[in-house]
Formats: sequence, C-alpha cells, structure tokens
Amino acid sequence: MTSVTSLFAPVDADLVVLVENLKNLVSARHPVLYAAAEHLFQAGGKRVRPAIVLLLSRALLGQQEPTSRHRRLAEITEMIHTASLLHDDVVDSSDVRRGVPTVHSLFGNRIAIQAGDFLFAQASWYLANLDNLEVVKLLSEVIKDFAEGEIQQGLNCFDTHQSLETYLEKSYYKTASLMANSAKATGVLSNASPQLNQELYCYGRCVGLAFQIVDDILDFTGSEDDLGKPAGSDLKSGNLTAPVLFAMEETPYLKVLLERQLKEPGDLEEALMLIHNSKGIERSRKLAEQYAQKAREHLAEVPPSESLQALVDVTDYTLKRLH
Amino acid sequence: MTSVTSLFAPVDADLVVLVENLKNLVSARHPVLYAAAEHLFQAGGKRVRPAIVLLLSRALLGQQEPTSRHRRLAEITEMIHTASLLHDDVVDSSDVRRGVPTVHSLFGNRIAIQAGDFLFAQASWYLANLDNLEVVKLLSEVIKDFAEGEIQQGLNCFDTHQSLETYLEKSYYKTASLMANSAKATGVLSNASPQLNQELYCYGRCVGLAFQIVDDILDFTGSEDDLGKPAGSDLKSGNLTAPVLFAMEETPYLKVLLERQLKEPGDLEEALMLIHNSKGIERSRKLAEQYAQKAREHLAEVPPSESLQALVDVTDYTLKRLH
Repeated sequence: MTSVTSLFAPVDADLVVLVENLKNLVSARHPVLYAAAEHLFQAGGKRVRPAIVLLLSRALLGQQEPTSRHRRLAEITEMIHTASLLHDDVVDSSDVRRGVPTVHSLFGNRIAIQAGDFLFAQASWYLANLDNLEVVKLLSEVIKDFAEGEIQQGLNCFDTHQSLETYLEKSYYKTASLMANSAKATGVLSNASPQLNQELYCYGRCVGLAFQIVDDILDFTGSEDDLGKPAGSDLKSGNLTAPVLFAMEETPYLKVLLERQLKEPGDLEEALMLIHNSKGIERSRKLAEQYAQKAREHLAEVPPSESLQALVDVTDYTLKRLH
Repeated sequence: MTSVTSLFAPVDADLVVLVENLKNLVSARHPVLYAAAEHLFQAGGKRVRPAIVLLLSRALLGQQEPTSRHRRLAEITEMIHTASLLHDDVVDSSDVRRGVPTVHSLFGNRIAIQAGDFLFAQASWYLANLDNLEVVKLLSEVIKDFAEGEIQQGLNCFDTHQSLETYLEKSYYKTASLMANSAKATGVLSNASPQLNQELYCYGRCVGLAFQIVDDILDFTGSEDDLGKPAGSDLKSGNLTAPVLFAMEETPYLKVLLERQLKEPGDLEEALMLIHNSKGIERSRKLAEQYAQKAREHLAEVPPSESLQALVDVTDYTLKRLH
C-alpha cells in the first residue's frame, strides 16, 4: 500500500515548509495557542488539501517554482480545514480525532473556539491579500459551504428519509467544496484558461466526494486503531452516510432502528450487523470508484509530469485505503 | 436625553429594512437557527455600526440613495458584530447580554457556535461579492482584529502591569476596528478621495474608542437594569479597563486585590469602592471626551447634511449615556 508520504513526493519539501509556517503563525504571537497549535499541526494530518494545491501548482507551472501566492493558497486550505475541525469537535463534543485527544478536550472550549476563529480570520486576511478577487470569491464560497454543511448535518440527524443526493450535497459542503474551489483557485493563480479551471474544479469535487465516501465506509470497516475513534461513530451520532442509505433500501428493519435513534439496548450492534450483511458497503465502494474515475478524466488537459502522476495516484490511494 | 432612534432618524427606514434582511437571511433556510436569529436581531441591539455606515453613505452621496452595495456593507458590519458576540458569549460563558439571556444559554453551545460561524461565513461571502478588493481587505482586517482582541483579552486577564496603551489597543481590536474600517469602506464604495477615506477611518476609530471607554465606565456606574448584566462584571472576570488602570495609579492596594484575582471574601466589593473613591472614572470620562472631540474634527471635510449632523451627534450621544 502506497504511503501518503511517498504519494506526495514531488511536494514533500513544500509541505515541510508549510507546516513550519503554520506553526509559527499560530504560536508566535499567542503563547496561549502555542500548545494547541503544536498539537494541531503535528497530529498526523495527511495534508491532502495543501498537497493537491501544491501538486497542481507544480503540474501547471512546469519548470517554474510555485510562487509565494501558490504557497499561501496551500496554507489557506489547511487553515480553513483545521479551523472547521476545531469547531466541529466542540459542536459534536468529540474527544478524539486521528487517534489523539481533541483540542477542546485537552484545552477546553474556550481555546478551541478561539483557535478556530483565529485560523478562519487569519485565512480570510491572507486570502484578501492574495490580491485576486476571483480567488477570494472561490474560497469565501468554501467557508460558506462549511457553515452550511455543519448546519445540515445537524438537521439531517437520524433522518431516514434523506436521499443519496442530500448525502452527496452534504459531502460536497463538508469536504469536496474546499478541494474543488482550491483546485480551481490554483488554476486562476497560474493563469490557466477558464475551461481548464473548470476541469480542475471538477477534479477537486470528484476527489473530495470519493474521499468522503471512503471515509464513511471506513467508519464501518476500519479498526479503532486505524480510525483514531471507535468504529460506527457516525451511525451512533445519527450521521447517516452512503453505506446506511444503501442498506436501508434492502433492509427496511434498519429504518425502524434508526427512527428510534438506536435507543433500545443492542440497537447499535444490530444496525451495524444489518449494514455489514447488506450490499451497502460494496455499493458505496463502487460509488467512490466512479468518482475517482471521473476525477482522473478531468486531468486529461494537464500536461504530463511527476506532479500530474501524483494527482492521478491520489485517486487510487483514496480507494486503496479500503484494503 | 436623545434616544438612539431619533439620533439615527435619517436612516431609520434603512435600518428597518436591514433588520428584516438579516432575519430572513438567517432563518429562511435554517429552521434550527430561526429562533436564535429572531432572538439575536430582535434583542434591543442599537445597530450603531450599520447606522454609521448608512449615515456616512447618505452624507457622502448627497441627493443619491445608498446603493445596494452600501446597504450590503451595513449588513456585513452587523453580521460580523453579532457573530463575534455569539462566540464571545460561549468563550466567556455569559448568560445575559443586553438584559436578555444569551443564545448559548438558551439554545446551547452548538447553536451559538454554528450561528456565529454561519454569520461570519455569510459575511465573508457577501464581502467577496461586493466586488471591491480594497473593501475586502478592510473588512478582513476587522475579522482578524476581532480574533486578536478575543485572545488578548484572555491573555491580559487580571494583568495589573498592562498599560493604558495595551488597553486602547485591545479596545481598538474589539470595537474601534470595525467602525474605523467600515467607515473607510463606505468612503471607498462612494468613490471618496484617499484623503477623505483616511479621515473617515479616523472618525470611526475615535468614535469606537470613545464608545468602548464609555461602556467600560458604565460597567461601574450603570444599574443592572441599564446594563442588562450585574455591575462590575468586567472587573470580576479580570478584564481591567480604563477606570481600573487609572485607579491603580492612585491606589496601590487595588493592585494587591487584583493580583490575588479578588479571591478573598469582600475583595470585589472593596475593589469597587476603591475605584469609585478614586479619580479613575472621571479620568476615563475625560479620555472618552477627547476621543469624541477628535472624532468630530475628522468630519470637517464631509459636506453638511442632516446625516452629517447625526454623525456628529453620535459622538455627543456616546458621552450622554453617562448622565
């Protein structure tokens, strides 16, 4: 299995600089956030979002090095992503993420909210100072989509009537919007054509959706060690993902369990068994595969390079996480 | 005493539309935020920030009506302000604001954080779509300053060594930055000269500082009914404001009480008495008066109108709140 590190080889050095910059940014002026920042940017994040921006930058710029604005855009994606995780963990009262305690469980709500607000605010300011109105608009769309996704997830809690479309929309807001809009913004900063920018947007959208579907499958098939949280966490909290939606089609009794919010003893275990015995996981895997395939097709117009190959490999890697 | 309503007479109708727009924005698509929004935009807010933007718009545009972009800017100021209050109330665990229970105490942390994130996100998106990079930069500065102020207030808690400069800087971040940068942004949207825009920035900064100093005095002299929270709340939570900083210069024993964080029985009452018996409140009032006076001077280049007069009167009104 490809490790993420070797996958991002063309931008490994870029990512080291990025993490250092982010740590300095948060900790330099705010001792109170120092520990939180160390914790955040150290905690085994895969840096998929900035890696995609940096790989695309190198793929589009050819022999040229990414400019400071390309690097800044990559930093902005990681800041927005991290800020949203910080607030999500407070909203969901999550104690563990990526196998380590969350900022809110270690340092309290106060620091988690402030650190999130600080990262969002700093990201907005960096963004404005990229001096490109189109890029500002693309990324402000992402911030809006995050807030929308956060609220929708709350609204759809244990809603057994939601469609696959609703699920995909929510996944776009939560995950794919950032990848889609930052991929397009990379094109804009590289003076790519409007047509190519649209292809890059679609690449990011499809990778993001594949990524989210795979994450949602792993919530059922992964071990607690791999996930960094107990398996079935999404289901338990009422977040009905692709495997559940497909399983409900075959197994109406699953609906009954979910409609009573898994409140009777043994409900969670029974629901998990019904999902495992259904075609829900297999159908979800196929859906993720379709998005990964589409993602690759949207790279057709990008000139060949080591970085392009890595962008193609990201789509394979996403699915390989399932083996 | 001038009521705020008659003070803002030239833009009363504009403010009614603004509040309706904000309520619709938050509640239309999100039933879960509906109650929070009703509560928020109904709760006796003075709308000082959007009123200043709208008055300045009318003062600068002469016979012309404010454009939809001027109105949108006014909405953005109220959204950013409200979002910051929502998160402040969670961070400070405040149960009451403006005499009514806070969103976080009524609806829980989850809704308060989400509503704040939603308003910040929506404000960023509106901002980007004003299609003016200079305005985006000015307001992104405000969002950054808010986060900075929120963190600084935590850091300086019960810090008896802080200077008046530190206090004014914190007050700029918390209050004056929004008024200063949105006043300047109004100039930019009205095609005012760079010199006039700078004057408008200074007007907003001085009004904001006067406003914050007066608020900080009222925390000592106001009744619980006027304040909508118990008097001495800032002091109790370790937020050392102008009256305290001045009082410490005359009364070294006050420092002793504050350094032990008012933890012995009777400390809070004794500290309040020492502040009332000092010249701290009077000196703070004079400082606010100086800023109000400076604010008026920065309006010298704005052509006379009913709206200009209201902008002058705002500075008087700020001080009249003390009588």
